[in-house]
Amino acid sequence: MIYFDHAASTPLHPLVYASLKESLLNDFANPSAPHALGRALAKRIDNARLQLLQSLKADSKQYMVIFTASATESNNLLIHSATNSSCIYSNADHPSMVVPASKTKKGGESHSVHHLLTHVNNTSGLILPIEEISAKLKQDNPSCFIHVDAAQSFKKFPISLTSGTIDSLTLSAHKCGGPKGVAALIIKQNQKQKLLPLFFGGDHEGGLRPSTLNTPLILAWEKIFSLALPDVSPIASINQFLREKLSEKKMHFHFPFSPENHSPYILLLATPKIPSDIIVRHLEQKEIYLSSAAACSSKIRGNNPTFHALGIEEKLHKHILRLSFSAATTNSEAEEFAQTLIAIVEELSRLRL
Amino acid sequence: MIYFDHAASTPLHPLVYASLKESLLNDFANPSAPHALGRALAKRIDNARLQLLQSLKADSKQYMVIFTASATESNNLLIHSATNSSCIYSNADHPSMVVPASKTKKGGESHSVHHLLTHVNNTSGLILPIEEISAKLKQDNPSCFIHVDAAQSFKKFPISLTSGTIDSLTLSAHKCGGPKGVAALIIKQNQKQKLLPLFFGGDHEGGLRPSTLNTPLILAWEKIFSLALPDVSPIASINQFLREKLSEKKMHFHFPFSPENHSPYILLLATPKIPSDIIVRHLEQKEIYLSSAAACSSKIRGNNPTFHALGIEEKLHKHILRLSFSAATTNSEAEEFAQTLIAIVEELSRLRL
Repeated sequence: MIYFDHAASTPLHPLVYASLKESLLNDFANPSAPHALGRALAKRIDNARLQLLQSLKADSKQYMVIFTASATESNNLLIHSATNSSCIYSNADHPSMVVPASKTKKGGESHSVHHLLTHVNNTSGLILPIEEISAKLKQDNPSCFIHVDAAQSFKKFPISLTSGTIDSLTLSAHKCGGPKGVAALIIKQNQKQKLLPLFFGGDHEGGLRPSTLNTPLILAWEKIFSLALPDVSPIASINQFLREKLSEKKMHFHFPFSPENHSPYILLLATPKIPSDIIVRHLEQKEIYLSSAAACSSKIRGNNPTFHALGIEEKLHKHILRLSFSAATTNSEAEEFAQTLIAIVEELSRLRL
Repeated sequence: MIYFDHAASTPLHPLVYASLKESLLNDFANPSAPHALGRALAKRIDNARLQLLQSLKADSKQYMVIFTASATESNNLLIHSATNSSCIYSNADHPSMVVPASKTKKGGESHSVHHLLTHVNNTSGLILPIEEISAKLKQDNPSCFIHVDAAQSFKKFPISLTSGTIDSLTLSAHKCGGPKGVAALIIKQNQKQKLLPLFFGGDHEGGLRPSTLNTPLILAWEKIFSLALPDVSPIASINQFLREKLSEKKMHFHFPFSPENHSPYILLLATPKIPSDIIVRHLEQKEIYLSSAAACSSKIRGNNPTFHALGIEEKLHKHILRLSFSAATTNSEAEEFAQTLIAIVEELSRLRL
């Protein structure tokens, strides 16, 4: 099997899986319970918060961690609290930024401005230099609020909160070897009073995010906080190899984005002759799995608003393949993929003549 | 170890754990992905929906399942959509009902009425005959909406949606041997257009609950949908045994609620002489774990609004112990607990003389 859909969801890192196997069995108590089992789990969760902040080079006096169930929830929790603010964002951001941001106040009356930045775009792979941009934005308007969606970059690219210019940050576990169902909103301690909960109940997470804390998922995700970032150059080579290999034959493969400023973990590819849905079906026959669009919008047919915002011509929207790799992706997988894709497109083109 | 805090969270059922061990490893793809791995998972999740409806004797043409991350989220999703309705509820309900319901419209102007019912109260164990009550309420006002929080009753007491009088139902996995991080809102198909999402993003769950579907947690929870309900009589005997045993000596143990109409899985107990927090600490030294209050409100000190709503005298609020059992709780655990509790209270009373 060749799995090139890591931007949609990743297999578990072996350390994460080992942790889950043990923790799901033993750490069943409720970390809000007043007894020793609960208190011990609450302490381990608080330690996971510290480990997470440390991995972001964040001062734990300056920032805090709110665990949520998804990056979508984290983005919404932040943006929901910015209803009376002007949100500045891109329509190419993930729908969990675009949709809630489009519901916030428009126009010039509002006093506060929220900049929503995507560190690595989940469709194009565009990398924003978030620290540089944040510093610039804060220089121009020190009272602006800067939120970064780092769901696709965490544990792939360095993120540092040392300078304090980023006010909040969304992270997802299942995009980086962690389990589905746990994510985080990192926010400056002095901004937390602005947060409005998305829903209400007990006083978990300071009342900002009620629901029983998910000990096994949090402790499993923690296992990768301290791991070194993988070397990006082997993936950059694989990305480059595929661009070259698929350009060799005159098959009109089209790469909408240059390698420059784009994550090599994501490679967008258009196959003008054949709709991508058909190619996905043929590739899966060969046990090769990738996406025709981001999973969150996979049901969108025809004109895709994200592709539109990314400047991809409408006639190509039904022809986009998104390849997304992990640090474990190998040269031979890339080689096999390229050969298979070429063979499929050649065969389908012949049939259609 | 004696664990009498099952109402806060349960250990995993062995079938659930076995499923997770396998599924966490293999079912990593995103069920919204367009490729075969994703589609196969989406199909298995849809089958889990059917199994869940079947276990509730619900017609899948009449009802639908929305998977969420917690019962708190499920209750909020429903009540958030009832903002312009009059919500009728009890302050003794779980905070995830009481807090959002208290934010809905008050008074007589609104056209619609939402009745919020708790099948088994998480603190007192009070059982409401939900089918009977719903039938009566619908008879009086056919246009009223009936929501039931069944987080504490699912897979302990029978729930049937056959009559169609219940409009929506909240279920939780981790209160019945399933994993933390998955729950459901069951709702009538013809009511779903009234639902307003709590947050926004992709089109998962018909746009009503965006976030990557949590395949491993859902498929693991599914393992218990078809299990027969445990026989309640052994737990009723244990509950009765503890009431009698702890009444034997003149230690002034007080049981605020009678066994009648109350779940035997929950036993509330007041120890007037000693604050319950101190007893919890002494019991945990003997590896006996239980709560002084529901975990969701364990940080509440002094006057507890749920206890108040339940009619428990304020002077007893700091003296309440909540014992909560599972079908696997044994007579010898109950015997050991009773002896230990009596010994602790006797010793502490002596020290305080």
